[in-house]
Amino acid sequence: MDRTPPPSSRTQVKRLPARGDYDPATIHAILDATFLCHVGFQAPEGHTVVIPTAFGRDGGRVFLHGSAASHMLRSLRDGIELCLTATLVDGLVLARSVFHHSINYRSVMVYGRAQPVVDEAEKLHGLEVVSNHIAPGRWAATRQPSPQELKATMVLVLPLSEASAKVRTGPPGDEEADYALPIWAGVVPMTTVYGTPQPDPRLTPGIPQPVPLLGSRLQG
Amino acid sequence: MDRTPPPSSRTQVKRLPARGDYDPATIHAILDATFLCHVGFQAPEGHTVVIPTAFGRDGGRVFLHGSAASHMLRSLRDGIELCLTATLVDGLVLARSVFHHSINYRSVMVYGRAQPVVDEAEKLHGLEVVSNHIAPGRWAATRQPSPQELKATMVLVLPLSEASAKVRTGPPGDEEADYALPIWAGVVPMTTVYGTPQPDPRLTPGIPQPVPLLGSRLQG
Repeated sequence: MDRTPPPSSRTQVKRLPARGDYDPATIHAILDATFLCHVGFQAPEGHTVVIPTAFGRDGGRVFLHGSAASHMLRSLRDGIELCLTATLVDGLVLARSVFHHSINYRSVMVYGRAQPVVDEAEKLHGLEVVSNHIAPGRWAATRQPSPQELKATMVLVLPLSEASAKVRTGPPGDEEADYALPIWAGVVPMTTVYGTPQPDPRLTPGIPQPVPLLGSRLQG
Repeated sequence: MDRTPPPSSRTQVKRLPARGDYDPATIHAILDATFLCHVGFQAPEGHTVVIPTAFGRDGGRVFLHGSAASHMLRSLRDGIELCLTATLVDGLVLARSVFHHSINYRSVMVYGRAQPVVDEAEKLHGLEVVSNHIAPGRWAATRQPSPQELKATMVLVLPLSEASAKVRTGPPGDEEADYALPIWAGVVPMTTVYGTPQPDPRLTPGIPQPVPLLGSRLQG
């Protein structure tokens, strides 16, 4: 089978290389199954920081957003190197031996430098992407940003040109001799689900909840 | 209310400081509600790397484990600085304005240096902690590591002495004028749940699945 090669040496999956996948379709599908990522970078003070944040994907790039006062965004807008990692846990892999226990997961790592989005129309587009990535259709259903709100929000864009995926699926792989042991083995699936929406205590009565929008996208 | 002060300036939550919490009880409870963390550090080549990995908590420290061939563990065992972040997403906070949308979450950040565990009994203890953190009771139910497997496994320990939690709960906080808008607002809870266990295709018939162990611990 022809496989997409890694885009750089640092994106190449070294441990268990068979789990590596550099096909943009795989990478995009994983990013679209979650909205949470962890962004790591070197703080101006010199230590490494890992911050959880939401993102939105738009073709071959992701948008990050947040307060213009955010330390993370202010550090990243200067074009420093970052590593963005998004991970979905799909199940516990319970083996017969402690040693062969594992986790089924899908993860994506992206290396690169984020650029601040300054053009106002492009900034609104970035915010729309993030908003609809988290809650499809939500952008059009809510009050749009005022000029003041837009000014207080920073939007960064990161290309997916240096990205890799790593995926584990399937049952445990036990030592041959261990298959005879009287120990239960298999996979316990894990999924993230939405619960019953909790209306704002100040919600005006009679407004229907946007169930179709939210039911349409589940992790896992 | 007396609050635990931050253990260092870099652990102090700067953005929205009211969300910061340095009480070990809060930090431990968040770490106990998940087993996935993201570890960031500077790779020997100079760039920042963020790797998803499992962990286990034991009092005021966490254990990490993995293959002795793991690049991450081999980098970290030399005592380089790391940042370990664990995040639970508890819900989408849907506001009436795009601007006030948010996410309910609990996260923990730990700074420090991990130490390799070399003593064999302590290494087994660390593996037991990780194993039981992921799947309570699983350690005693499975075949213990052979000397060879133990040798092939690296265990690192990281103190929780420089840690912070950040938590958001509750409904959206909209602009006063927006409460009159005919837009649904509230929180859509998100939880991670376990599905029906999938027996290993090679499972010896008649072995009951360890339901009580797995049903006892859910995220969220």
